[in-house]
Amino acid sequence: MDDASPLLRQMLDIGQRARAASRALADASSATRNAALTAIAQELRAASDSILSANAQDVARAGEAGLDHAFIDRLTLNATRLDAIVSGVEIIAALPDPVGATTEEWTRPNGLRIARVRTPIGVIGMIFESRPNVAADAGALALRAGNAIILRGGSDSAASSAAIVAALRKALASAGLPEDAIQVVPSADRAAVGHMLAGLGGAIDIIIPRGGKSLVARVQSEAHVPVFAHLEGVCHTYIHADAGAAKAVAITVNAKLRRVSVCGATETLLIDRAVAPSLLPSIAEALTAEGCALRGDAEARAIMPMADATEDDWRTEYLAPILSVRVVDGIDAAIAHIAHYGSQHTECIVTENASAADTFLRRVDSAIVLHNASTQFADGGEFGFGGEIGIATGRLHARGPVGAEQLTTFKYVVRGDGQVRP
Amino acid sequence: MDDASPLLRQMLDIGQRARAASRALADASSATRNAALTAIAQELRAASDSILSANAQDVARAGEAGLDHAFIDRLTLNATRLDAIVSGVEIIAALPDPVGATTEEWTRPNGLRIARVRTPIGVIGMIFESRPNVAADAGALALRAGNAIILRGGSDSAASSAAIVAALRKALASAGLPEDAIQVVPSADRAAVGHMLAGLGGAIDIIIPRGGKSLVARVQSEAHVPVFAHLEGVCHTYIHADAGAAKAVAITVNAKLRRVSVCGATETLLIDRAVAPSLLPSIAEALTAEGCALRGDAEARAIMPMADATEDDWRTEYLAPILSVRVVDGIDAAIAHIAHYGSQHTECIVTENASAADTFLRRVDSAIVLHNASTQFADGGEFGFGGEIGIATGRLHARGPVGAEQLTTFKYVVRGDGQVRP
Repeated sequence: MDDASPLLRQMLDIGQRARAASRALADASSATRNAALTAIAQELRAASDSILSANAQDVARAGEAGLDHAFIDRLTLNATRLDAIVSGVEIIAALPDPVGATTEEWTRPNGLRIARVRTPIGVIGMIFESRPNVAADAGALALRAGNAIILRGGSDSAASSAAIVAALRKALASAGLPEDAIQVVPSADRAAVGHMLAGLGGAIDIIIPRGGKSLVARVQSEAHVPVFAHLEGVCHTYIHADAGAAKAVAITVNAKLRRVSVCGATETLLIDRAVAPSLLPSIAEALTAEGCALRGDAEARAIMPMADATEDDWRTEYLAPILSVRVVDGIDAAIAHIAHYGSQHTECIVTENASAADTFLRRVDSAIVLHNASTQFADGGEFGFGGEIGIATGRLHARGPVGAEQLTTFKYVVRGDGQVRP
Repeated sequence: MDDASPLLRQMLDIGQRARAASRALADASSATRNAALTAIAQELRAASDSILSANAQDVARAGEAGLDHAFIDRLTLNATRLDAIVSGVEIIAALPDPVGATTEEWTRPNGLRIARVRTPIGVIGMIFESRPNVAADAGALALRAGNAIILRGGSDSAASSAAIVAALRKALASAGLPEDAIQVVPSADRAAVGHMLAGLGGAIDIIIPRGGKSLVARVQSEAHVPVFAHLEGVCHTYIHADAGAAKAVAITVNAKLRRVSVCGATETLLIDRAVAPSLLPSIAEALTAEGCALRGDAEARAIMPMADATEDDWRTEYLAPILSVRVVDGIDAAIAHIAHYGSQHTECIVTENASAADTFLRRVDSAIVLHNASTQFADGGEFGFGGEIGIATGRLHARGPVGAEQLTTFKYVVRGDGQVRP
């Protein structure tokens, strides 16, 4: 370690302090963790002036740097947005403590009583871009599940994140917990991210990236520790032959247009050949009336005028008011399209046919499958998780919205009275 | 792909066939998967002559190559051992099908009904050494959970594994399932393992190594896909001040000596200073009477004659009739020793004090923690899992014994009646 760079030495020190803090958090009582969460909301309120003034500095720098309007909007905090952040923390503080909960329990013929008990994962590494609210949300969710967290935000939001984390650390200290349970990486050097992806000498148990596709792709390809993430959400809404017309229109419009920039927004509409002539016109008109551009295959274009969809369109997460439209020959073709082009994120079937719904829900291999409900429900808050640190499309441990429970692992607790193994 | 090596092309083809087979398995009915599992037991019985004769070839080659007795013993099959393999498959066939089971269900205020439903992980890559039973156990457990599996055994057991897998594939075909759900890598080239660790172009979801520490260490350091494994089991038995004397002796002797070569064998005995003078002599005598060598710290040696334990001993998984012994100053010191030197595998406290037991079970951060029961219960069969494909000490998804349920993931199934998101 003597020949490690100063940055690496600094990062390893952050990791060791996080590991030590995570042990203290795991050993702390539920009451102590609750007190710290309540204190976080109070300290964020008390620090609102300093957070908003730090944020104003970030916003001013972003303006000088000529960053675009959407970026600056994501970066900007105001009293209303800060209130929403504090409310989010209060919701997380009110969640039941997942740590120590017994999720299964059984007794063996030899009398051994085995319980599966939730425990914190340990240390979370969070890599995010410009939204300063991530520091508060992620810090509170990590603490709810008894984990320490190392935050590495974009340099554009550095002052905002630092001000928020200062309030979080003050809250930890006020509850008698180690401040190092929530740390922010002080260096703007991109190599710091590389060190986190290498795991800081075993100090990081899980990496969670929040940001654009290029950030997530880098994390997924370079990380030597497990990652909870989704690279993209190429979500589908499938209008089955037995769909109700009003639901088909309402769900498609909401799934595509409620917010076009979220990962649960529908990007491709699949519609059964049997009902395309009768239903597609009203769906298409409702979408175009709200400013959505359509790109269809030949059959869709024969029914309604729209642009030509290329092979690329079926794989594209637009995150914009654009929808690709394909006419399919029944449920098998719809499921095959989703298996071939989808991202295993969130897919919906609209139908009044219960058997078709069951087939779709069973066979589509995505983190979230819905029947007669908008794909925009892909969200930890909407699932009742009280918040989310991200959405995962991987197959292990966490899938879909990642809330406090998903930030725990478990151990088996075995109680005997002297049993030995034959 | 045109410039890929012939081996890589072959491995990628194996991966693609496994992925396609895994989809067929996931879509198949529970009755079909059950039929295949029952057929596996039948086909293994029917093929017993050819399996034993293939095994005799492997054993003869190992003898010619001068491999040691323990190795040849692990490699050797006979009628009794083959019977045990078939019985193991029958137990797995009788397990409830985990696929499709709903593990949680709730309704949101807006009427959405959300269920968490078990689904297969997908494709398992299994890398093992000489024990030919692994092919049958792992193939059956993977199938029980609806997964395809790619088996890569040691070249020493190649003929045995090939004969076993031939029977397994025949059983799959007889149930109308794709034979490629269970494949064996035909190449003895070690580069094949490297290709599996790289994930075969995304075709492998999880790698499970079974074998010695060097195999597991290579897999853990080189894998680009998640791994379920334990590098070693440095397990502890802790004799608390309020331990019952008879239980302390019986549990320690069983935990150390029942089988010294298993990962759940105790390697270090921790004993409270308050009871070391009274209890250590009888424990030590019972162990040495059965041929166990002791290595103690100064305090232990002052009570009973034994060899000197070095710092290395506290970190060593002996897998042999050797036990390190340390006198500790109470439960905090015992927990601190385990946190510092342990491998987060399996630890036991022997005590009649319920509050001390609770403290130990809560604070020790291992996959399995036991009160008044032998560490040798660290086993999927003993947990009631009907078998295990391995034991995991990682923190995500699976910890402790990995059985059929642990080889599933889940999806969220959301049922609505037209809900859109405000």
